[in-house]
Amino acid sequence: MHLSIDFFIRILTLSLFHPSFALIFLPFIYVQGYEISHPAFISSSIYTSIVCISWFFGYLSIKSRNGMKTKRLDWDEEVVIVTGGSSGLGSLLVETLALKNVTVIILDIIPPEIEHVNIIYYECDVSKFENVQNVAKEIIEEVGHPTILINNAGVVKGKTILDESENEILETINTNLLSSFWTTKVFLPEMIKNNHGHIVTVSSAIGFSGIAQLADYCSSKAALVAFHESLRYELNNRYNAKSVRTTLVCPGEIKTGMFDGIKVKYPFITSPLAPLDVVKSIITALDKNQSQDILMPYYVNLMPLLRFLPSFIHDLVHQISGSDDGMKTWKGSKSAYRKNR
Amino acid sequence: MHLSIDFFIRILTLSLFHPSFALIFLPFIYVQGYEISHPAFISSSIYTSIVCISWFFGYLSIKSRNGMKTKRLDWDEEVVIVTGGSSGLGSLLVETLALKNVTVIILDIIPPEIEHVNIIYYECDVSKFENVQNVAKEIIEEVGHPTILINNAGVVKGKTILDESENEILETINTNLLSSFWTTKVFLPEMIKNNHGHIVTVSSAIGFSGIAQLADYCSSKAALVAFHESLRYELNNRYNAKSVRTTLVCPGEIKTGMFDGIKVKYPFITSPLAPLDVVKSIITALDKNQSQDILMPYYVNLMPLLRFLPSFIHDLVHQISGSDDGMKTWKGSKSAYRKNR
Repeated sequence: MHLSIDFFIRILTLSLFHPSFALIFLPFIYVQGYEISHPAFISSSIYTSIVCISWFFGYLSIKSRNGMKTKRLDWDEEVVIVTGGSSGLGSLLVETLALKNVTVIILDIIPPEIEHVNIIYYECDVSKFENVQNVAKEIIEEVGHPTILINNAGVVKGKTILDESENEILETINTNLLSSFWTTKVFLPEMIKNNHGHIVTVSSAIGFSGIAQLADYCSSKAALVAFHESLRYELNNRYNAKSVRTTLVCPGEIKTGMFDGIKVKYPFITSPLAPLDVVKSIITALDKNQSQDILMPYYVNLMPLLRFLPSFIHDLVHQISGSDDGMKTWKGSKSAYRKNR
Repeated sequence: MHLSIDFFIRILTLSLFHPSFALIFLPFIYVQGYEISHPAFISSSIYTSIVCISWFFGYLSIKSRNGMKTKRLDWDEEVVIVTGGSSGLGSLLVETLALKNVTVIILDIIPPEIEHVNIIYYECDVSKFENVQNVAKEIIEEVGHPTILINNAGVVKGKTILDESENEILETINTNLLSSFWTTKVFLPEMIKNNHGHIVTVSSAIGFSGIAQLADYCSSKAALVAFHESLRYELNNRYNAKSVRTTLVCPGEIKTGMFDGIKVKYPFITSPLAPLDVVKSIITALDKNQSQDILMPYYVNLMPLLRFLPSFIHDLVHQISGSDDGMKTWKGSKSAYRKNR
């Protein structure tokens, strides 16, 4: 376990960058006898304003998406479906939910390693609409309508555009991207009918910037961000189903074996995530019944800036971070189909 | 023709926001007798710095991607290929190039309306790799290796995720996104061999933010941005082919009939583009032999910010701009397969 910048950011957001601290700090400076025009007071005011405004913006974002009052989820009523739930992040999410006594359905092409009374496995190639449609019919008959859909299935091929075969590109786009369309098509109507449900889209940090040897993967993950946004605005403006929640998950590298062997130049900043931390964040969003954007570790929050900044800065970040060399030492996602943590 | 904010921005960038003006302004203030510590001098310095730094960043971006010296393109040596070149933006681009006496190849499922000695049409469904492979063989034999590839083919279905059929989603993703993989796979190797060529990716303003009724379209366009980035970094870091140029085009609405009837709430800011303006920008990038990011009209430059800002601002921009209502009045891309300008 590396000591990472996220550790310090977490401490800072709970202390120096917490509005309660910042709000106390300003009167404190004042009672020290500093005039309002004194640089110490001015800089303190700026600091307090920035902390409070950013906190307030975060608060507003949650409230404007979810309404002022959100009721915690009653897990007894929920049926969760996880695509690609037999391995990697998905399998950990499934297990954790099952242990919380939640009914979880796995859609995957291979069966899960563990058995549990709360886990129901359906063999399904989510990249194929017909397959999803048929399995959905079975699920609705046998288990009931899923209320939480976690679009997590993903594969990585890790080759350049030229080295990759047609089938590899198709598999990446179909599994990572199109599967979300297919599962949404079959499971969303009932959620809209009840104005209750949650669709979680698992994208990636590199959904915000393409890197070498991952053109298809980055494309699919960038597309998922757009898919998630369009879905949100369709729910708001076409179906008036604001209580159907949508959560976007953009993690950096997760220690699941999917990106086994890749070179991380600055683990202090881009330290690989513990799968359980990502799972916890997802379950928290579900539990609070809130649409959230889960971008972790912290650096991922800055990644959308790359496309706004002049291209030489974008390129420079790639060069300095060595992101385009990362895949050179990749060993293949050996264990992506099996949990490995 | 609406008077748009872009008109004023263009004037400002040529006057007040031009570094030569800003650099003259500062000594001018000084000789007026203002002290260096005077607010007028300080604010002038800030203004001059901002103008010069932003100009310099733009300059650096072009130079760092293209090298210090770029030679203008010798068009006689070039063979241009335009996917979806029989209608809309593509057809105008083809015509304009043909009139410049450039050999242009059209790949499209329908033949072009005009005939010209410089235009060669190949019937090709670019969404299918096999089709692209076969046609590429013919082209290389009959015309030679294309040196400029313009991935322009695109369709729009304009339905919600739930209303859209499997085939419509597949057609959008395959035509708009996967075609770029297929054409790049067949035409890039020769460009790398000669370290000469140009691949233009036509994405969209809404590649930076998903909107209602266009989930598949926005997904495909967001994916194209990632594709373009990955391609650039593969050329730099895997093939050492920096002189193979890559240009990204993200236009707002273009008056080609593709988005006929959509509601634009603030035409002053998001005025529809004249197709010729986009064509000119593309040809300028080709002519200068420079990798460029062509984001137009001006507001598109700000769109990547949306994913960085708190989600309530992102949502607010959608609400204020009415972007999610735009497609409600869409009349179908009647003329998307025929030029209409």
